[in-house]
Amino acid sequence: MAGRRLKLAMAGGGEGAFIGGVHRMAAALDGDWQLVAGAFSSDPARNRRTGEQLGLDPARVHDTLDALLADERARPEGERIDAVAIVTPNHLHAPMAIAALDAGFPVFSEKPMAMNLAEAQAIAEAARASRRLYALAFTYSGYPMVEEARARVARGDFGRVRLVHVEYVQGWLSSPLDREGNKQAEWRTDPARAGLGGALGDIGTHAFQLAEHVSGLTVEALSADVTTHVAGRMLDDDVNVLLRFAEGARGTLRATQVAAGEENGLRIRIHGEKGGLEWSQMEPNTLTLRWLDRPAEIVRAGGPGLSPTTLPRLRTPSGHPEGYIEAFGNLYRAVAGSLRDDAPTGGALGEPDWFPGLESGLRTMAFVEAVLESARSDEKWTVFPALAD
Amino acid sequence: MAGRRLKLAMAGGGEGAFIGGVHRMAAALDGDWQLVAGAFSSDPARNRRTGEQLGLDPARVHDTLDALLADERARPEGERIDAVAIVTPNHLHAPMAIAALDAGFPVFSEKPMAMNLAEAQAIAEAARASRRLYALAFTYSGYPMVEEARARVARGDFGRVRLVHVEYVQGWLSSPLDREGNKQAEWRTDPARAGLGGALGDIGTHAFQLAEHVSGLTVEALSADVTTHVAGRMLDDDVNVLLRFAEGARGTLRATQVAAGEENGLRIRIHGEKGGLEWSQMEPNTLTLRWLDRPAEIVRAGGPGLSPTTLPRLRTPSGHPEGYIEAFGNLYRAVAGSLRDDAPTGGALGEPDWFPGLESGLRTMAFVEAVLESARSDEKWTVFPALAD
Amino acid sequence: MAGRRLKLAMAGGGEGAFIGGVHRMAAALDGDWQLVAGAFSSDPARNRRTGEQLGLDPARVHDTLDALLADERARPEGERIDAVAIVTPNHLHAPMAIAALDAGFPVFSEKPMAMNLAEAQAIAEAARASRRLYALAFTYSGYPMVEEARARVARGDFGRVRLVHVEYVQGWLSSPLDREGNKQAEWRTDPARAGLGGALGDIGTHAFQLAEHVSGLTVEALSADVTTHVAGRMLDDDVNVLLRFAEGARGTLRATQVAAGEENGLRIRIHGEKGGLEWSQMEPNTLTLRWLDRPAEIVRAGGPGLSPTTLPRLRTPSGHPEGYIEAFGNLYRAVAGSLRDDAPTGGALGEPDWFPGLESGLRTMAFVEAVLESARSDEKWTVFPALAD
Amino acid sequence: MAGRRLKLAMAGGGEGAFIGGVHRMAAALDGDWQLVAGAFSSDPARNRRTGEQLGLDPARVHDTLDALLADERARPEGERIDAVAIVTPNHLHAPMAIAALDAGFPVFSEKPMAMNLAEAQAIAEAARASRRLYALAFTYSGYPMVEEARARVARGDFGRVRLVHVEYVQGWLSSPLDREGNKQAEWRTDPARAGLGGALGDIGTHAFQLAEHVSGLTVEALSADVTTHVAGRMLDDDVNVLLRFAEGARGTLRATQVAAGEENGLRIRIHGEKGGLEWSQMEPNTLTLRWLDRPAEIVRAGGPGLSPTTLPRLRTPSGHPEGYIEAFGNLYRAVAGSLRDDAPTGGALGEPDWFPGLESGLRTMAFVEAVLESARSDEKWTVFPALAD
Repeated sequence: MAGRRLKLAMAGGGEGAFIGGVHRMAAALDGDWQLVAGAFSSDPARNRRTGEQLGLDPARVHDTLDALLADERARPEGERIDAVAIVTPNHLHAPMAIAALDAGFPVFSEKPMAMNLAEAQAIAEAARASRRLYALAFTYSGYPMVEEARARVARGDFGRVRLVHVEYVQGWLSSPLDREGNKQAEWRTDPARAGLGGALGDIGTHAFQLAEHVSGLTVEALSADVTTHVAGRMLDDDVNVLLRFAEGARGTLRATQVAAGEENGLRIRIHGEKGGLEWSQMEPNTLTLRWLDRPAEIVRAGGPGLSPTTLPRLRTPSGHPEGYIEAFGNLYRAVAGSLRDDAPTGGALGEPDWFPGLESGLRTMAFVEAVLESARSDEKWTVFPALAD
Repeated sequence: MAGRRLKLAMAGGGEGAFIGGVHRMAAALDGDWQLVAGAFSSDPARNRRTGEQLGLDPARVHDTLDALLADERARPEGERIDAVAIVTPNHLHAPMAIAALDAGFPVFSEKPMAMNLAEAQAIAEAARASRRLYALAFTYSGYPMVEEARARVARGDFGRVRLVHVEYVQGWLSSPLDREGNKQAEWRTDPARAGLGGALGDIGTHAFQLAEHVSGLTVEALSADVTTHVAGRMLDDDVNVLLRFAEGARGTLRATQVAAGEENGLRIRIHGEKGGLEWSQMEPNTLTLRWLDRPAEIVRAGGPGLSPTTLPRLRTPSGHPEGYIEAFGNLYRAVAGSLRDDAPTGGALGEPDWFPGLESGLRTMAFVEAVLESARSDEKWTVFPALAD
Repeated sequence: MAGRRLKLAMAGGGEGAFIGGVHRMAAALDGDWQLVAGAFSSDPARNRRTGEQLGLDPARVHDTLDALLADERARPEGERIDAVAIVTPNHLHAPMAIAALDAGFPVFSEKPMAMNLAEAQAIAEAARASRRLYALAFTYSGYPMVEEARARVARGDFGRVRLVHVEYVQGWLSSPLDREGNKQAEWRTDPARAGLGGALGDIGTHAFQLAEHVSGLTVEALSADVTTHVAGRMLDDDVNVLLRFAEGARGTLRATQVAAGEENGLRIRIHGEKGGLEWSQMEPNTLTLRWLDRPAEIVRAGGPGLSPTTLPRLRTPSGHPEGYIEAFGNLYRAVAGSLRDDAPTGGALGEPDWFPGLESGLRTMAFVEAVLESARSDEKWTVFPALAD
Repeated sequence: MAGRRLKLAMAGGGEGAFIGGVHRMAAALDGDWQLVAGAFSSDPARNRRTGEQLGLDPARVHDTLDALLADERARPEGERIDAVAIVTPNHLHAPMAIAALDAGFPVFSEKPMAMNLAEAQAIAEAARASRRLYALAFTYSGYPMVEEARARVARGDFGRVRLVHVEYVQGWLSSPLDREGNKQAEWRTDPARAGLGGALGDIGTHAFQLAEHVSGLTVEALSADVTTHVAGRMLDDDVNVLLRFAEGARGTLRATQVAAGEENGLRIRIHGEKGGLEWSQMEPNTLTLRWLDRPAEIVRAGGPGLSPTTLPRLRTPSGHPEGYIEAFGNLYRAVAGSLRDDAPTGGALGEPDWFPGLESGLRTMAFVEAVLESARSDEKWTVFPALAD
């Protein structure tokens, strides 16, 4: 912790939810945040119980986010929350983010940003109008070795980038869990709560954000094949996309939740004229660099040869693995740093205060729509417009 | 060796060539074959020198394949060659194969089968007319763990196949070697000698053959992006393809020779309803199986749990690695077995006598043409017709 | 968090220290603990500064542990600390632990337990006299897959254990850092602050504890070679030991800090009659099981096939890596659970409340002394007595 | 092949044997050798059958090696064999090698050199008296990346060597196969046919030879624990040794055949002042280098950065794996090169003509005896004398 402890409220994340607990651990990790308020569940009993388990003051546990926001606004500045974490199913992201921003509170939202691009644009408008920070949990951007990868590409280690391939391979939706009582599966495959995309929205957005973030290139056109393998499922569970990036780079994106037996296989490979990199989320502390004219190198979190922008994202010496919660913690730390400095949009890329925000959110939602448009189209290429922003 | 030693002639493969030496080692490995004749080079001095280095009778070293074939036909049956190995650049594959077949000799040819589909069909016609064996060096089919993978899919271990992803990632053509005196690079990027495809023909065909061979499914439609990244190169060096297989399976194929720093990264991943497999050519003795409901398994060459059809393809106990030359040797062994049994088309899939032949060759050439057609087209999907055969 | 939040005091861990920060993150992770008091440094200014950075009430930041203990004893029960974390260099472990226990406070101490066995026995006596909990930061016991390994051995998956090999390979002391101003290196190689052992005490104790913990077997005799490779260093930096375990098992222990280029390579391999296991700290979420008669299995944190005692040690679904801080957090969670239940010695092995304590501490200190005795001796075997306890 | 094809006779290796077949493949691989004669089995029918299967002239297939040697001596020089490969169980190594050498024929023998050191010295005497080449199948010396490792150490890349750890971990003798009809297991655990050592002689000798070969250091003292885990077995199946090398280096050697589920895990790790290396036989084309002050490097067979002495040991481009048979073939190639140059003792270390011979053989037999002496002794250290040679 490098300053005043900030106060966090949480929307969603009642008992039994997955990502809410991760947010709480990530926020607690470095001592930058204290959870002080919540609207954890639309079920009042469950909401209350969660607040008790977390040791919160019952007066700051509310049945709706609106009640919470009203209560917090009424409190004196030193006591009032500094930000709202939104960890609900997707259909609540936009209304809740807009409500919080409109009430003057910064937002750290789960991804995808919203149900569709129009909603995302409404959030962006609210954020600009309120001049409040809006951060998005593209967690994988928080890994130190993702920053190392980005920094290496940016400083030209590999020369001009030619190839960008990203994949996000899961298997947990291989069977119709969504019709067998699994809550996580249920809402993620329900268009009314998940939005336009299934695997596409849930993990394809992560893959896309990572590809653009690390390569520093924007996608300009794509050609997509979108499939639902499990009978009766209403949203896609498998997406394959050809990508054309700026400056002539070419690649593919693969996102699937029906690769039976796979866990959480997010992997990116980028090659330029002189060499390339590979990073895999399941062994996040290793970045492999390959070179045209010399042996491959294994760059390790905490080891020699790291870029200056990677170092502030590390907590332990090399060989003491940091993981998913720590990556998440880096985003919370960055948001805290930004808020303490009153910098509503975060630091520059690579700086400790940088976090994914409006731009990542809008581009990923535009990507979801472009992929679905391509999937419906007979045209080979769907142009992927730069956002007017 | 399980029978009479067969006599081999070689077309191409003079000093300095790469694949000719591999053929000679593979043929020698198990004692099934003896190299007795050759037309190694169109340069007479180089041809003669190669023959001497290999300890051949000078009377059986000829400046042209036609001379060789004529000479061999004139010899008594016990002395005459049993087959011709064709290891030249691609533009000679078809005329040489047809000449050998027409002269009554079985052929073991390097891939790709020919410069284009029309040539490949002419070879097929010659093979059928002559009733002589035609084998193609889709070497990777010879690896024991590829057979294990194929057998597992075929017997339904994974349930119905949903996802088939194959990639062949090399980096050696990242710089314009082809204009810097590298012979291998030169002819492989020259349309007059390589044929229609660059990376597509050279390694994309391997990837495609492996995908259909292991999955047991045929590709029915594709959408391709074909790129030349190195300025001035006349053929593609990077190919990305969306694949639609029979029975609803979906996948991608990636073949590139400009992933700077990569070696010979052929990798296949297949997932069905219950689990999936992964095999990587650079660690060929390992087959990883993942399961929806139990821990992943590492099946190893020579280890417990192998399918009956895998065992005859192994030479050493587990932990004593076999490699590329041994995989190649398995094809030579299969061809020898077929010839000894007078079975011109090889055994059934999985049997020790099985090898890739006309069907693999014709489908891969059709694939090359379909990919190029798709790359030129504005249509999303190019139908990939079942070959009338 | 599954109950009332406990209050923690910390001794040591001022700015610039390494392990103090890890303790704070681990304690914060699950919300079980709140750091409320500290005696962070013998340097008053540094002490004060650390307290401020951590947002503590200045009244609870003391220049000495004695002052802290006196102050806390004087506070009412609901406000008073629940435990003291000792994160100082080794020479302070015993006096501080004894002081805290004598004052009636449970202790969570860094390892090694003390400078030598006599000190460790004094701590044990104090703990028994005070009937207060004493926990030791043998962090690696906290990894979920270490519990999985232990549980598998204990339930007989591998049959009778024959081989136990453990190694802890670091390289950071390869050069004379200790004489170049590196604080961590300085005290760890100074007998007055580190105790009898260098690498032996610092990491050999971890390796030994892990070997006995996972195998469920006690070492009965050993033969050791203890070396100082870096000229001028006063303590060992490289230790190799032959181990004879109960029930006829045999093994080796290796601990080195001069394997230049290595990070934090703690690895254990155990084999029984039917199979074996391998776990490596740098990829902590994987446990490899090998079998005499079937393919190897990769058991993964969060994946299928885990033992019931492993599950409560996990926070995230499979493929979302947990690391060193989370393993540490599991110990803090276990200590909290024990304290809430008023169970001063922790739960049974495998239960969520279990943590390494007096027994691990005493055995590891006896091990340090036995290794040094063996190193000085001409006798082949040094008997390693069961502790009378 | 770089010259005249040499003629090989084989003693042992009849149908059903393992290593004889490997010798034949290795000898055939590069075309340097032609198997022309054999005394494959003491069972005349089996001997004859093997000769037929291999297509040999029946006149050169003999029931005893003595008959073979007499027959070959009587043949004219151009027809006579150039060397004898001895691939029998261990008890025949010495008498056969001496007979062949006395008859004037070079010898390529399986390891271990003999049943004990006295026998080995008798072989050495015969070799010196006859001035004929004597080569030993310490196969692992033939791997290209072992040469790369050796060359790197020798040229000082890592500074002075401090740590040398070698292990050879197999599991195939975990159960009493030797009493269940497994021929390989039977003779390897029978003192009358295997010699003094079980796992020690069979694989411990490999590990020891590799350690001295790659490190360039000789062992000067050792302390050993030698165990038989499987009840009723007459020779050791598990050996752990502390090693003291010249120049202050320290290490361990582990050789076991009862690590249930392990395959053929020969692995060496060496560290010096500036960095270290790791090589594992089951992934033989990779050499990992780690450095104190920069990222680890992955040096690959066929890739950039190889030493000049590694290159002649390679047959394929990077990423086309070579394995055990190719490593073996490198020894056959070296022996052929030596014989063609009439250099009876092989080239200098690192040269293509170098192979393991008398020195490796004598040192490994002395090692076997020293380990067994240490195991029986109460003395901590058994001095391991430099051989007078």
